[in-house]
Amino acid sequence: MDAATPRFVFAREERVRFGHCDPAGIVFYPRYYEMLNAVVEDFFTLGLGIPFDQLLGPRRVGLPTVQLDSGFERISRMGDVLVQRVAIEHLGRSSLRLFHHYEGPDGRRAWFRQSLVCTSLETHRAQPLPDDVRSALLALSGLPESTP
Amino acid sequence: MDAATPRFVFAREERVRFGHCDPAGIVFYPRYYEMLNAVVEDFFTLGLGIPFDQLLGPRRVGLPTVQLDSGFERISRMGDVLVQRVAIEHLGRSSLRLFHHYEGPDGRRAWFRQSLVCTSLETHRAQPLPDDVRSALLALSGLPESTP
Amino acid sequence: MDAATPRFVFAREERVRFGHCDPAGIVFYPRYYEMLNAVVEDFFTLGLGIPFDQLLGPRRVGLPTVQLDSGFERISRMGDVLVQRVAIEHLGRSSLRLFHHYEGPDGRRAWFRQSLVCTSLETHRAQPLPDDVRSALLALSGLPESTP
Amino acid sequence: MDAATPRFVFAREERVRFGHCDPAGIVFYPRYYEMLNAVVEDFFTLGLGIPFDQLLGPRRVGLPTVQLDSGFERISRMGDVLVQRVAIEHLGRSSLRLFHHYEGPDGRRAWFRQSLVCTSLETHRAQPLPDDVRSALLALSGLPESTP
Repeated sequence: MDAATPRFVFAREERVRFGHCDPAGIVFYPRYYEMLNAVVEDFFTLGLGIPFDQLLGPRRVGLPTVQLDSGFERISRMGDVLVQRVAIEHLGRSSLRLFHHYEGPDGRRAWFRQSLVCTSLETHRAQPLPDDVRSALLALSGLPESTP
Repeated sequence: MDAATPRFVFAREERVRFGHCDPAGIVFYPRYYEMLNAVVEDFFTLGLGIPFDQLLGPRRVGLPTVQLDSGFERISRMGDVLVQRVAIEHLGRSSLRLFHHYEGPDGRRAWFRQSLVCTSLETHRAQPLPDDVRSALLALSGLPESTP
Repeated sequence: MDAATPRFVFAREERVRFGHCDPAGIVFYPRYYEMLNAVVEDFFTLGLGIPFDQLLGPRRVGLPTVQLDSGFERISRMGDVLVQRVAIEHLGRSSLRLFHHYEGPDGRRAWFRQSLVCTSLETHRAQPLPDDVRSALLALSGLPESTP
Repeated sequence: MDAATPRFVFAREERVRFGHCDPAGIVFYPRYYEMLNAVVEDFFTLGLGIPFDQLLGPRRVGLPTVQLDSGFERISRMGDVLVQRVAIEHLGRSSLRLFHHYEGPDGRRAWFRQSLVCTSLETHRAQPLPDDVRSALLALSGLPESTP
């Protein structure tokens, strides 16, 4: 899949808040990663129909991030609305790679390439993605079946 | 410079706190980036002898992060002490690339490769690194003079 | 005004996220205060029709919190939706006291009594509330004109 | 015990960081509460000799905050060092009230009065403070034995 033309399958918006911004008046970059986790939560709950709180709570399925590359291209200020889009780049047996776009009216503000691994929250060891998660990801992604 | 054998020039420690951890009992990854900014602050103030608060405050020199790649290799729990090391990978006219290691007793927990650009906080445009910053970086890094 | 029967003039909802919760699986209380600032922002922008980002940005009007009392009555977990309500308890020449409720399906989860002072962001000194802010607060509150 | 003359039994310092500050250039108040939790952690681990991570981790003892009153008296900026002091105001069978001071060179910056309740992290119900915690609090506080 060509990252230059990602096929986005989910979008949400988030308004940049006072508390996201630093003394330079722009988003303090650790806050972008808090937003990123909110995107992943909403992508699961709303995009895939798999409630994220059920997954990590009663189902004890973890999805820790193991690799995360990011680019910050334009500054964002308090009050800006960011459109956050998600593409599924790769789906493995126990892993998943997402590509994220944050856009403002002037173009792309930031991007993130995020590899997540499915784990048991009892042992913190890798395990295959649950069948319902895997099916929902496949259906939404349009990707062919694949293994890592 | 070979990233496999970084030449670390600064180190600090940070204890993982309750507030860094998530319901899975391990560090919530956005907190690693808050720690990262603390490392950069201390690296400037203590490692380079350039007070970071003076730089961003009265001197109005910004150092936004423009690219940031990260790997999360082992989990960290509340109470763990992380040794955070910094290497200077590249020094350009108006940019800087740092490589960071976070280590626990069991080995490397996470790494970060961070590109920062020097800006004016009045205009948010790139500008050359101030002479004192550049000299301190060169002296500490052992790198030859270079341009981007 | 009797705090036992607050007259709420604004409400919003916020879903408790993974990143709000601690290793005990419940909201880490500093995150409630991040939510509180989001409530104040939305109360100004949406409730009063005074864009908060304009107020603190170009208009250079500050609204620092000077007193804040809080009670945490029931725990909140990931996935819970909190209804956040705001009442205007007191309106002075340069100050404002708000009362906040956070409710879940099982009743009140938390409350906050917050005193804010209007300042100039140039000097950080107190100044009268701008006329448009004062008028909007009076209109919404149903309070009589008052001085501190 | 007279809150006007608290008997402080523990102190630590924390430097105000870039990430603690907002676009007004001063500490964003939710960050004061993150610092507060760090104070409580260090008070237990270093002041009482009861490792906080052991308490909340393997021992499954919770200490949620149920009431928290706060005053913000002077602004703090990036680079400021805050001296954070703790007094034990009240010790009950299953509860504890702390009074906190944050001081800068110009005097008191903020204060907090914090009531914590001892709970089981299995049930989130109140339970008596463990004997070792209670003994360490009594020894440090100089308070007489008391019940709620």
